[in-house]
Amino acid sequence: MNSFGRIFRISIFGESHGKAVGIVVDGCPPGITLAEEDLEADLARRKSGAKGTTSRREDDRPVFLSGVHQGKTTGSPIAVMFHNADVISSDYDMFKDVPRPGHANFVAKKKYEGFSDIRGGGHFSGRLTLGLVTAGVIAKKIINPIQVKADLLEAGGEKNIDKAIQKAIKNNDSIGGIIECRSLNMPVGLGEPFFDSVESLLSHLVFSIPGVKAIEFGSGFKAAAMTGIQHNDPIITLSGKTKTNHAGGVNGGITNSNDLVFRIAVKPTASISKTQHTMNTKMVKMVDLEVKGRHDLCIALRIPVIVEAATAVVLADLMMINKTIS
Amino acid sequence: MNSFGRIFRISIFGESHGKAVGIVVDGCPPGITLAEEDLEADLARRKSGAKGTTSRREDDRPVFLSGVHQGKTTGSPIAVMFHNADVISSDYDMFKDVPRPGHANFVAKKKYEGFSDIRGGGHFSGRLTLGLVTAGVIAKKIINPIQVKADLLEAGGEKNIDKAIQKAIKNNDSIGGIIECRSLNMPVGLGEPFFDSVESLLSHLVFSIPGVKAIEFGSGFKAAAMTGIQHNDPIITLSGKTKTNHAGGVNGGITNSNDLVFRIAVKPTASISKTQHTMNTKMVKMVDLEVKGRHDLCIALRIPVIVEAATAVVLADLMMINKTIS
Amino acid sequence: MNSFGRIFRISIFGESHGKAVGIVVDGCPPGITLAEEDLEADLARRKSGAKGTTSRREDDRPVFLSGVHQGKTTGSPIAVMFHNADVISSDYDMFKDVPRPGHANFVAKKKYEGFSDIRGGGHFSGRLTLGLVTAGVIAKKIINPIQVKADLLEAGGEKNIDKAIQKAIKNNDSIGGIIECRSLNMPVGLGEPFFDSVESLLSHLVFSIPGVKAIEFGSGFKAAAMTGIQHNDPIITLSGKTKTNHAGGVNGGITNSNDLVFRIAVKPTASISKTQHTMNTKMVKMVDLEVKGRHDLCIALRIPVIVEAATAVVLADLMMINKTIS
Amino acid sequence: MNSFGRIFRISIFGESHGKAVGIVVDGCPPGITLAEEDLEADLARRKSGAKGTTSRREDDRPVFLSGVHQGKTTGSPIAVMFHNADVISSDYDMFKDVPRPGHANFVAKKKYEGFSDIRGGGHFSGRLTLGLVTAGVIAKKIINPIQVKADLLEAGGEKNIDKAIQKAIKNNDSIGGIIECRSLNMPVGLGEPFFDSVESLLSHLVFSIPGVKAIEFGSGFKAAAMTGIQHNDPIITLSGKTKTNHAGGVNGGITNSNDLVFRIAVKPTASISKTQHTMNTKMVKMVDLEVKGRHDLCIALRIPVIVEAATAVVLADLMMINKTIS
Repeated sequence: MNSFGRIFRISIFGESHGKAVGIVVDGCPPGITLAEEDLEADLARRKSGAKGTTSRREDDRPVFLSGVHQGKTTGSPIAVMFHNADVISSDYDMFKDVPRPGHANFVAKKKYEGFSDIRGGGHFSGRLTLGLVTAGVIAKKIINPIQVKADLLEAGGEKNIDKAIQKAIKNNDSIGGIIECRSLNMPVGLGEPFFDSVESLLSHLVFSIPGVKAIEFGSGFKAAAMTGIQHNDPIITLSGKTKTNHAGGVNGGITNSNDLVFRIAVKPTASISKTQHTMNTKMVKMVDLEVKGRHDLCIALRIPVIVEAATAVVLADLMMINKTIS
Repeated sequence: MNSFGRIFRISIFGESHGKAVGIVVDGCPPGITLAEEDLEADLARRKSGAKGTTSRREDDRPVFLSGVHQGKTTGSPIAVMFHNADVISSDYDMFKDVPRPGHANFVAKKKYEGFSDIRGGGHFSGRLTLGLVTAGVIAKKIINPIQVKADLLEAGGEKNIDKAIQKAIKNNDSIGGIIECRSLNMPVGLGEPFFDSVESLLSHLVFSIPGVKAIEFGSGFKAAAMTGIQHNDPIITLSGKTKTNHAGGVNGGITNSNDLVFRIAVKPTASISKTQHTMNTKMVKMVDLEVKGRHDLCIALRIPVIVEAATAVVLADLMMINKTIS
Repeated sequence: MNSFGRIFRISIFGESHGKAVGIVVDGCPPGITLAEEDLEADLARRKSGAKGTTSRREDDRPVFLSGVHQGKTTGSPIAVMFHNADVISSDYDMFKDVPRPGHANFVAKKKYEGFSDIRGGGHFSGRLTLGLVTAGVIAKKIINPIQVKADLLEAGGEKNIDKAIQKAIKNNDSIGGIIECRSLNMPVGLGEPFFDSVESLLSHLVFSIPGVKAIEFGSGFKAAAMTGIQHNDPIITLSGKTKTNHAGGVNGGITNSNDLVFRIAVKPTASISKTQHTMNTKMVKMVDLEVKGRHDLCIALRIPVIVEAATAVVLADLMMINKTIS
Repeated sequence: MNSFGRIFRISIFGESHGKAVGIVVDGCPPGITLAEEDLEADLARRKSGAKGTTSRREDDRPVFLSGVHQGKTTGSPIAVMFHNADVISSDYDMFKDVPRPGHANFVAKKKYEGFSDIRGGGHFSGRLTLGLVTAGVIAKKIINPIQVKADLLEAGGEKNIDKAIQKAIKNNDSIGGIIECRSLNMPVGLGEPFFDSVESLLSHLVFSIPGVKAIEFGSGFKAAAMTGIQHNDPIITLSGKTKTNHAGGVNGGITNSNDLVFRIAVKPTASISKTQHTMNTKMVKMVDLEVKGRHDLCIALRIPVIVEAATAVVLADLMMINKTIS
C-alpha cells in the first residue's frame, strides 16, 4: 500500500489539503550526514513557480521529526513532514458530484465510499511526492558513487520545450513529456530474481508518481522491432561493459555495470482551464466543467527530480540487500 | 525476492536444468475447483513447438504437492512442481567463461560468486514461468467475471507475424514483438495508493518475465505528445465509462471500470545460431561464439499467456485486498 | 523493523527526547469515526502520574497529520504525532560510557556505531508506545464487538499492588508485575497457519513493548505439567465453546470462539534510584552509578492499556485478512 | 501466512496426508555446502520411534528440488520436499463431525468452510515441521559460530522424563513438557527495534510450532516478582557480558553478547487413547470419542530440534539484516 522497499523502506502519508504530508524512512544506516540544507536543491527542483508550473507556492520546509541527531542519521526511522500552508479548499467542493476528467476523484469516491478527502487531490496529489524527494536525497547519499540524473527530453511532442509550453499557455491547454533517467557508476549485481528485477522495482516505484503512463529500459519499444544480432549486448570488458547498452544496463533483471537507462512518458496534466465535458453524477447528465484552481500546465517539468528519487530509493534498497549475501 | 503479492502470494523456485521448477501459491481462498486439466490450455499456449519456438519439449505435467483436496483448494498453500525431464546440460559448460551476449550468465556469476547454476539459464530461465502460468490459472478463477486476454500484435516490427518469423528463420536470427493485454469487465476501485497503483503492481510482475523491456498503459508513450484536452478521459456513464480510455482503464492508480489495457515490448531472443562476438573472461580476449542448444527464435510468441497470468495474479490480489475494507 | 501488520499496518517513529514520536496506520477502512477525544481514555490510562509511575508529565496531545477528514477516517494512512515537550536531556549524557544495567544503552551504541540518540532511551523508550495506544484505539473500533481488557494481576510478587508499591518506594527500588489480557466475544477463525498463528502474532507485538519478558496462553506453563485428559478442551456447544478453555481460546493457532486469554510478565523497571555497579566502558572499570532522572518504579502499572492496544491491532489485522477469503 | 523472515525467508507447504510437505528457503547466500547427509542428524532427532512418540514411521527423506548445485547453495530458492508415504487416512473420517478435543479440526472446518484437508491434521500437522528443521540446518550453517542447543527439561511435571513417560503409557494418557533453548557465542546487536525485537521474532516463530503455549526469556515469569536491584543485569566486561543474565541475553530487544536463553511450555498431546467427551456437531449432542490412529504421547520429546531450527532461522535472518547497515 503506502510503503515500499524491503530494507530501505519508505512509508508515505498525507493529503494535499490536510495538515501535512510526509514520509517515514526505515532501515537507513546510522551515521549519514543529514541536514535540512541537503534537501534544498532537490526540493527546489520539484517546486512550482517556473513557467508551466502551478502558481501554488508553499515553503516546502521539511520538519525532521525523528531519526536524525546531531546532524547524523541514528539508525531509527526518519520521519519528515511538510506542513500544508497555502490551501484553498473551496475550489474542490464541486468535484464531489462532477468528477474531473482524467482525475482520481471518481475512483477515490467509489473506492473509499465517499470518505476520501478529495480536496486538492487528497492523498492522490502530486504533493505527496515531497516525501519521495526527501527519501531520494537520503538514498542518493547511500548509493554514492552511483550518480542518478533525470532530464526532460521533450514536452508536448517537441524537443524545444519552451516553445511547447508557450503554445500550451496560449491554448489554455496542458502538455505531457518524456523524461530520461540515467544512472552512472553502476556496479554489477543489483536486482533480485525472479520478481524483484531492477526493472520490476524501478517501474513499480516510478508508476506510483502521478501522471506516469509508460516506461522503457534501454532500447525499450524499439527492441521489439530489432533482431537478436542487432540488439544483443556483447560484453567487451572484464568489468562487464557492453558494446551497445541496448539492454539499458540490465540483463536478467540484474545490473551489468553499464549505465542504467530508462525513459518514461508523463501524460498532460488533467486539470486544464479549457472548458470540458463530464458527467454530473448527481444530476446524471453531461455538464460543462471549468477547472479553476492553480495547476501545472506541464507536470513533466517537475518530475525529473522525483524520478531520480525513485531510482535512488530502489538502488539503495538493492545495494543494502546485496550486502546480506556478501 | 522470489515472492510476489500481499494476500494472494506466489513464491517461485527452480532452475532450468535442476530437478524441478515450481510455485507455491499462498492465500488462495478455499473451495475453488482445481484440477490438472484446468491448466492444460494455458500450459499448452506457453509451450514450445510452434514455428519460431524452441524444439525443447517437455511434458510440462504439473504435479500438485499440496493445497488441493477432492478437487478443491483447501485454503492452505498450493505447491505445484514440474519435473525437468529433457535436459542436455553439456550445452552450457562453455558459458562459464564466455558469457552469452544479452544473457544473465555474466551478472549471475558475479552476483552469486560463481555458485549459480547457469545450465539452461538456471533460475533465470523462461522455464520458471511455468509456475507463473499455473498461478494465473488459479487467479483467473478468482477474478471471474474479469476476462484477461493478451495477444501478440506484431513481431520483428511486422504485423504479419508468420512472414516475420520466416524471415528470421532464413537469417538464423531472432526477433522481438509487441504484446497487448486487455482485461474486460473491470470493476471500479482495484489498486492502492500510493505505491501499489495498478500500474505499479502490473509492471512489477510483468518485468519479471524474461525478455520484457517496456510497458505502456492506455495511450502510453503517445500521451507524452498529446494535450490535456486531447488526452483527458471524460466520464460518460454513471458506472464510470469514459469517452476515450486514453488512460487505459486507470486513474490515480486505480481501475475506473473501463478495459484495463497495456502493451509490452519483448526483446529478440538473446540466443541465436548466428556467430557472435563476446569476451572470454578467462582468456581476456574477444572470441567468436556459436550458441548451439535449442532456443526460441521469437520468445514473444509464448509470452501472451504469461502476461495474462501476471495480470490475473495482480488483479486477484487486489480484489482480495479490496475486500478487507468492505 | 518498525512496521507491523499485513493489512492493518502500523509504522512507528520517534525518539524520547527528539522532536516527536508518532505512528502511521495504513490499511484502515474508511468511514470510521475518529476524533482526538476518542484517544483520551486510553492515553490517560497509559499516562504517568499515579503513585509508582514517573513524574514526567507531558500533555500527550495527539496531532492528527493525515487520514482523518470531517471526523472520519478516509482510507489513506493515518499519521499521528505527539510532540516531546518536557525534555531534560542532560540527565543522559553520562550513559554514553556508563551503560545503565538492564537498559538498551550498550546494545544501541554497538549496533548503531555510536550514532543512536540515547537520550531518554531514544527510540527504545517506552514513550514510543504512545503510537501503539493510538493504533489500539482505532483497532478497537474495527474489532467491535470484540472487547479487549487487560489488568495488572500482581506487582512485585504480591496481589496487593498498593502495598507492593509502597514497599518499593520505601526501598528506592522498582518492581515488575503480571498482566492478564482477556478478549471477549471472539469469533471462530482468526489466525493463519502456519507462521501467523494468533499466538505468534500476539507474542510478536507484545514482546515489542519494553519490559515484557514472558507470555503464556491459557494454562500456559501449567499445561506442561498436565496430562492430555486434564488439559484437553472438549467442545460443548455448536458455536465452539469448550469446557475448560485451558487452550486460552486458540486451537491450532486459530481462535475457537472462547475468550482469548494470555498473561505476560513485566520485569522491574531498570532505572532505579539505588546505587548500582556497572562498567565504565571508557575507563574500563566498574563504577558506582546513581540514575537520576524521573522514572517509573513499576512500569507494569502503565502497560495494561498498551497490551490491549497490541491485542486489538493484531485482531483487527486478522479480521481484515479473514475477509479476503470470504 | 505461510512465510516468515525478511531476508532469509521460509515458505512452508503441505498437508499430513497429501502428496508431500516441504519448504522453500529464499534469500540463502550462495556457496554454502549442503547435502542430504547434513540433514540426517536433525531429522533423526525430530523423528518418531522413541518411547512416547508416534509409531508412524516415514523415511523422511528430503528431496532437493532446487537451489543446490554441485553440493553448494546457488543463491536461488532452495525447495525441499518430503513425500508422505505411510498414510492411513481412513482414521480421520469421523472427525469431520466429531471434532477432537484440543485439535484444530473444528476451527479449520469453520475457517475454510469445510474445504480443509483434515486428514492427519492436514496443514496443521506437526509433520509440517520437517520443513522447518530443514531450514534450521541451513540456518545453523549461516549463524556459525553461534551454537543453538535445546533440551527437554521436564515432562509431565517431572524432571525424570522416563518415569513420567512410563506413567503416561500406563494411564493411556499424554503429557506436556518444558524445553529450554540456549544459544552460545552470541554477538551484540541482533534484533531490530521496535517491532522486530529478538523476543518478538523468536516467539513469533516458536508459537508456530504445534503445541507450544508459553515462552519466557531469561528470568521470565520470575522477573515479575523481582525488584530492579535483583533483576538488573550489570555489564561487567567490555564485550557486554553481564553478571546475572536475568535478561536472557536481550536488552531492549537486541542481543547483548550473553547466552540467548528462553524456555517454552509444550502442552500434552491432544490425541489420547483414553475415551473423551466431545460434541457431535451433526447430531448436536455430546458423544464418547476414542481416538485411534498413531500419536505421540509426549510431543515435547520431538520439539527441541524444532525449537533449535526456529531459533537458527531467526538469528540467520537478523545476522543478514545486520549486514545491511554495516
